[in-house]
Order: sequence, then C-alpha cells, then structure tokens
Amino acid sequence: MAYELYYWPGIQGRGEFVRLALEEAGAAYVDVARDEGIDAMMAGLSAPGPGRPPFAPPYLRDGDLVIGQTAAILLHLGPRLGLVGESEADRVWTHQIQLTIADAVAEAHDTHHPIASALYYEDQKPEAARRAEDFRSQRIPKYLGWLERVLAANPAGPRYLVGDRLSYADLSLFQLVEGLAYAFPRATERALAETPKVVALHRSVASRPRIGAYLESDRRTPFNEDGIFRRYPELDG
Amino acid sequence: MAYELYYWPGIQGRGEFVRLALEEAGAAYVDVARDEGIDAMMAGLSAPGPGRPPFAPPYLRDGDLVIGQTAAILLHLGPRLGLVGESEADRVWTHQIQLTIADAVAEAHDTHHPIASALYYEDQKPEAARRAEDFRSQRIPKYLGWLERVLAANPAGPRYLVGDRLSYADLSLFQLVEGLAYAFPRATERALAETPKVVALHRSVASRPRIGAYLESDRRTPFNEDGIFRRYPELDG
Repeated sequence: MAYELYYWPGIQGRGEFVRLALEEAGAAYVDVARDEGIDAMMAGLSAPGPGRPPFAPPYLRDGDLVIGQTAAILLHLGPRLGLVGESEADRVWTHQIQLTIADAVAEAHDTHHPIASALYYEDQKPEAARRAEDFRSQRIPKYLGWLERVLAANPAGPRYLVGDRLSYADLSLFQLVEGLAYAFPRATERALAETPKVVALHRSVASRPRIGAYLESDRRTPFNEDGIFRRYPELDG
Repeated sequence: MAYELYYWPGIQGRGEFVRLALEEAGAAYVDVARDEGIDAMMAGLSAPGPGRPPFAPPYLRDGDLVIGQTAAILLHLGPRLGLVGESEADRVWTHQIQLTIADAVAEAHDTHHPIASALYYEDQKPEAARRAEDFRSQRIPKYLGWLERVLAANPAGPRYLVGDRLSYADLSLFQLVEGLAYAFPRATERALAETPKVVALHRSVASRPRIGAYLESDRRTPFNEDGIFRRYPELDG
C-alpha cells in the first residue's frame, strides 16, 4: 500500500525532507494535499474521537499508523526504505543528526518570522533583519561547521554522515544546503567555502539518479517566498 | 554502569527532561558537569579524531554510546527505563509527543531570546515583548490545547498521554507545565483553566513518590533567569 504524505501544497517546507526519502527509495506514495487539496489534510488534524492526532503537517499515513513530526516520520521510514544503518547505534546517531538539522531549519524559518508565525513578514521586518544577521554570521557557520566535523570524524570516511552508506540524514543535509543557498546565497557561499566535505556530499546527493530525476520533475516545487527558506535579499546582508 | 548526563550546571534547561526520566526510573546516573564542573562536558563537544560529536548539551553517555539531542536521549532511554510502551506504534507516538513538547520549549526560550541566543535579554527586550505576547495568546493555548486533545483522544483513557501507563512524554508534559507556570504564571493559569486533563496529569506526575522526592531534593535546581523558562514579569502581560 502506498504511503500517504499530508503537507501544505505549494511549498517544499518540512514535507520536502520526507519527499526526498520517499523519492530516493523509489517508494510508492501519494502527496495527498497536493493531489487532492487540503481538506483531507485538515480533517486529519482535527479528527474527533479516539486516536492520535498530529500537531501539524507534515504527517504520514502508513496503513493504520499516522505519524507527525518530520524527524519521527523519518525515524519510522528509515529502516523501511533502507535509508538508515542496521545497528541501534547507527539509528540513534542518524536521528540525532536529523534533529540537529531540524533545529537549523526552525531557525531559518525564524529569520523571516522572529516574532510570530501568524503575522506576515512585512509586520516583523526590523526584527527579521536583526535575527537574520545573527543567523548568517553565527548560526549558518555553526551548523555547517558541525556537519563538516561529523563527516571528518566518521570512522568510515567522509563520504556519508553515518557509516559507509547513504542515510536519510544525508538527504536532509542536501535539503538544508539547498534551502540555505536559496535564502542566503552570499552568506551560505561564504560558509560553504569552509566546509568542503559538506559541499561534496551535497553534490553527491544531487547526482543520485532518483534524486536527480525528482529535482527535474514537476513533483519538486520550486523554492518560493511562502516556504521556510525565503529569498529576501535584505536578509542576506 | 551508571549513565552519565552532561549538561550545563545551574539551570534545569533541556537536561531536566532527561533527569526526570532517570529519577522516575530510579536509575543510577552521574550529573557530570554539575558534580565535576563543565570541563569534561566541553571536552566531549570538541573531541578531536574519529567519533560522533554531539552538537550541544545535553548529551548522555551510556557505555560506549554518546547521544545528544534531548528527544533522542529519551528515545534511547525509554525502553531501558521502562518509560515507553512495548509496541513500535506506542514508541513512535510517544516520541512524536516529545518532539512537539520540544518545539514548545524552543519557543518558550525564544520569548526572551527572539533575536539571538548569543545576546543578552537586555539587548532584545522590545522584540521579546512582541514575541512573548504572541506566545502567551496563541502558542501556549495551542500547545496545551493539543496535549488536552491527546489525553481526551487516548483510547485507554485520559490518565496518561500514551496507553494506560506512564511514559517519558508524561514526565515532559509535567516539566513543560512547570516551566510555563514559572515563566508566565498569569497566561498559563488562563490556559490551564481550559485544559483540566493536562492539569490532572501534571498533578499526578508531581505526586509520584520518586518524582516528589526528586523535586524536594537539592538535585532539583530551582528555576532561575539563566534557564529556558525565565520569569520576567514584563513578558507575562
């Protein structure tokens, strides 16, 4: 049975981390809200009666199981899609990297929404300018620098984040770098100049056959200014 | 062998979610930085050579395994401490709740640090006032309201978040409510008036023998204005 992904249509957002895993594995899935509109997605968030309601999109339906939170979805999919190592140690380490990437993504979001998600960017521009300055100068180098250290410290070599095989964390690194390079092209180029192993892994993921085909397809929504990674030139400093 | 927890001394912070799980289980653990100073903790973050360096505290050492990210630590400890159900479905649901509580904690932090963690609160007070207003009026009710729905929708009844047994998510709900009630007493009282099942679970956790003993002990650091939950009356509106 096909996986069902529920996420906001029209943006990559957090759903994209799940899509990349499903696409790399060649898994059968339905992108429900994109194909059928958001009514079914909204209904799943507010279903009355006994159950396990997710807090927010994205969420995944796998048979009877409904799972929210991007990192929890990947924790579930990893073994099923062959995108994580076999050992418990590899699995929790892969998950730890994913959670750290999720923190970076949340901070990237808050550069344009430092006050409230419910307000427009235009209603928080001075605050956004201050937060983005810190994100560019401190946080992007810190996150990418840590990923570089993880690659350098991998006993199996720097080709992948965990061991000697691709994991969903590698796909998520790819997406983080894509998003940062879209939203903060100048700051990200400066940071990437210091992290050659991250650059190499990003390139290697982009050149995988299924990922490459996905990126060329119309299933890949272009970045835009409704998503998490937004190109506001005034925030790139 | 005792677990080793590495976290900033002097605050509850994110380490407290791990402490509560260890305390409830009566597990042997060393709170390394609190007992021995932060040098060992800092060394673990910047260890050279092959390995798996955590991004930030808290991190846990369990034998040869080092695990960072609060939610990943609890994912690892849950089965070992008897603080999660046996089924895979229960485990990923418990983790999903934990990740949502972690999001709430991150947002609580950002009420006093909406611009940059590296700056003082005093350097971002106007922005903090705006962010805290949204957090009080929108986010606290949303998070506590979702936890209330989770309890109401639990097919096993509203006593626990997952099934008919205590899990680490229940302990984390307790800590979230404690923190919110410390930092935003007025706003939290208003929100809790709408979430009686959350109130009941918070009380029930507080009255557990080991948790009660822990809260009375000097191992429980009082809340203070260096931690994540800070009582700045001007932010409670």
